[in-house]
Amino acid sequence: MSVAALPEAMRAAIDAARVDVAALHAELPRWGLVAWTAGNVSARVRGVDGADDLLVIKPSGISYDDLSPADVVVCDLDGELVDGALAPSSDTAAHAYVYRHMPHVGGVVHTHSTYATAWAARGEPIPCVLTMMADEFGGPVPVGPFAVIGDDSIGRGIVETLEGSPSPAVLMQSHGPFTIGGSARAAVKAAVLLEEVARTVHVARELGDPIPIDQGAIASLHARYQHVYGQR
Amino acid sequence: MSVAALPEAMRAAIDAARVDVAALHAELPRWGLVAWTAGNVSARVRGVDGADDLLVIKPSGISYDDLSPADVVVCDLDGELVDGALAPSSDTAAHAYVYRHMPHVGGVVHTHSTYATAWAARGEPIPCVLTMMADEFGGPVPVGPFAVIGDDSIGRGIVETLEGSPSPAVLMQSHGPFTIGGSARAAVKAAVLLEEVARTVHVARELGDPIPIDQGAIASLHARYQHVYGQR
Amino acid sequence: MSVAALPEAMRAAIDAARVDVAALHAELPRWGLVAWTAGNVSARVRGVDGADDLLVIKPSGISYDDLSPADVVVCDLDGELVDGALAPSSDTAAHAYVYRHMPHVGGVVHTHSTYATAWAARGEPIPCVLTMMADEFGGPVPVGPFAVIGDDSIGRGIVETLEGSPSPAVLMQSHGPFTIGGSARAAVKAAVLLEEVARTVHVARELGDPIPIDQGAIASLHARYQHVYGQR
Amino acid sequence: MSVAALPEAMRAAIDAARVDVAALHAELPRWGLVAWTAGNVSARVRGVDGADDLLVIKPSGISYDDLSPADVVVCDLDGELVDGALAPSSDTAAHAYVYRHMPHVGGVVHTHSTYATAWAARGEPIPCVLTMMADEFGGPVPVGPFAVIGDDSIGRGIVETLEGSPSPAVLMQSHGPFTIGGSARAAVKAAVLLEEVARTVHVARELGDPIPIDQGAIASLHARYQHVYGQR
Repeated sequence: MSVAALPEAMRAAIDAARVDVAALHAELPRWGLVAWTAGNVSARVRGVDGADDLLVIKPSGISYDDLSPADVVVCDLDGELVDGALAPSSDTAAHAYVYRHMPHVGGVVHTHSTYATAWAARGEPIPCVLTMMADEFGGPVPVGPFAVIGDDSIGRGIVETLEGSPSPAVLMQSHGPFTIGGSARAAVKAAVLLEEVARTVHVARELGDPIPIDQGAIASLHARYQHVYGQR
Repeated sequence: MSVAALPEAMRAAIDAARVDVAALHAELPRWGLVAWTAGNVSARVRGVDGADDLLVIKPSGISYDDLSPADVVVCDLDGELVDGALAPSSDTAAHAYVYRHMPHVGGVVHTHSTYATAWAARGEPIPCVLTMMADEFGGPVPVGPFAVIGDDSIGRGIVETLEGSPSPAVLMQSHGPFTIGGSARAAVKAAVLLEEVARTVHVARELGDPIPIDQGAIASLHARYQHVYGQR
Repeated sequence: MSVAALPEAMRAAIDAARVDVAALHAELPRWGLVAWTAGNVSARVRGVDGADDLLVIKPSGISYDDLSPADVVVCDLDGELVDGALAPSSDTAAHAYVYRHMPHVGGVVHTHSTYATAWAARGEPIPCVLTMMADEFGGPVPVGPFAVIGDDSIGRGIVETLEGSPSPAVLMQSHGPFTIGGSARAAVKAAVLLEEVARTVHVARELGDPIPIDQGAIASLHARYQHVYGQR
Repeated sequence: MSVAALPEAMRAAIDAARVDVAALHAELPRWGLVAWTAGNVSARVRGVDGADDLLVIKPSGISYDDLSPADVVVCDLDGELVDGALAPSSDTAAHAYVYRHMPHVGGVVHTHSTYATAWAARGEPIPCVLTMMADEFGGPVPVGPFAVIGDDSIGRGIVETLEGSPSPAVLMQSHGPFTIGGSARAAVKAAVLLEEVARTVHVARELGDPIPIDQGAIASLHARYQHVYGQR
């Protein structure tokens, strides 16, 4: 498949997504979520005028300093390269799997952020003991299975863990977090807030037991936050 | 109510407060107190020429990068919007409650800063074991009740905890800190120093028990700091 | 005493020290040693052409952003103001005491840096378990007495603890560190390295016991570092 | 030996290495691996046109702010100064030993980064419990012997520990990490990722036991990462 053969509206959507995703990558080092070239953000480009959905993602092993919209790679939802001079992130297959199986997802983020990854290393869900966790995650942040790169097992682990969960984040065991959202920006926000709650609950636990929050309060905070917070 | 109908001196005071509060918001990410768009600063605008007191506050869910004085929202002390194109912070009701019930308060700050929030998650006051805590807080930092957004219960919890306490900071259980001050700048300073002492006492406690400070020394340090520190 | 009445060479030395000390203050927030306006750096200005020694120091409660050489305050070695539009740091008496009693000291730094202050809160010396500690500190970092601001007791506690110790740093109990050096720059370097070793040894101790270093190796590393490291 | 007497191609290679190494030093403070002037990066300059291999390295005790390519020092593989106005790093002998005994090594980095040094202070290898550790280190990060500066014992400890290990990093007991790579950039990358995994595994261990990763999975992740990650 070639980008040149796509409908003009689809090409414009790809260009916009490349700009958006290149800019969003800057949020990962800014909030201390990544070291060196680790981590990646992708966005779904919804098919228009008969074209299929595509995804745009960070190329593999590229410095955050050097990442321009032109470097951002376009792949189909099987993870195959459609456009781009550079090789796509080695995590592309996992992102693609999520887009194939979760049609409402518009963005996916993967990091090895320190505190979230520490919970993942113990295979322990983060308990929902903060109102800001109830707001954004609607409950504990769940753990996904141990899975190694090279086939669909990471993507499948993400989808099976997040389907039916209010949480936009999963801690892949011994690996690190993936977050999803209706847009790439929402997935980045979830990645930032995940590390924040992973760190805060860790710190709380270092000196004792956080007080549980009642399940009714969690559900009510989550519902309110999804509908009231921010600008309409 | 419309800002245009207010006395000219009141309109000028609102403009000045918007500039001040927009600039003070930059201190929250600078000192690492907030993630993404969380956290907010407000200031009381004292009524002049017959006008009632108002408050200015951050709009809901706006990036710290994008916050200009024009974005800062004006509300009355019932938390109702008076002027501004954006929706006010979802914490406005709590700020407004504090201004209604604590007339000496000129500024309020709310964050989810990591270490202060970790003490809040355990519902544990921060013991006063540092001379800098005695200086600024005059004793332990107290814990307020668990309360959820949506009515006056957060504001009431703040006021009931801080009335009669020398501390300008309260740790709302499972939620995070609120700080008050004679001005918005003083409340921001308290938020910065709160996170500093919350972290330092946490770190001290990780390896043993901090040495208590005699109550007389705490009172004398606090009195001196309030009257001698800084420029006259 | 007035600066205008001082010998020209002394006035030039004061001007140079103000520039130096203003610039060195920027190192404190840069290395994360201070919050808000806490912390201070001073330098001795050695008397020339018959003038007595003086000291230059940060004014009280001034933001690090706003600190220019002209703001830096000049005091005599009793801590009395000699020149400056602003009130000197509330820690000036402690700095002055050190200069009066330790003639080789050319610079003093005080911070509440997190990890050093946490050791001070427990009243526990930092054990010398890193070669970089042996290099710079020549042994454990000692604890000084609990002392409150307002008389000579902080200064006396610093001097009595550091006299005869190879360490350029003392942890004042429940308060925080003071560091000394042949110059203000050397004292700032000691403050930066102190926080580094305070943090590293804390982290090491969180998961077990660091391996002791033989006293002979400590002495030999310290001697070598004092004479060989850096440019001649 | 004088640089002027070297073949022109060798002089050009030295100039390029100085530029490269000066720029790579900026990565150490950027990723929080060093305090003050500690830490150093070196690169091998492979001999061409009959010249012997040389190395370029940071001068001793120089601020990271002030480091220009012209300041970078040239030494032979016995650690003796060949060109440069400044004294070489006091760790030059260790770097030189590594280049003499490990011909595939093109770059060496030494830091006292906090978490890696904390493991070194306990003399405890970092267990391989994260997929990103398997990727980059291929197993646990090993501990090297206690050795003091002044002879070949540090260099020998590095080489004896890393020979035959997949890890590009060694934790020298009570001292800190050294990392190696095919290039100086690769050694810097290893230093950055080492601190990342040292911190993450530390944090995981603070609240329990990380789940072990099967040795077969570690080997397969390591092989894949060495051959597939990044751009070809």
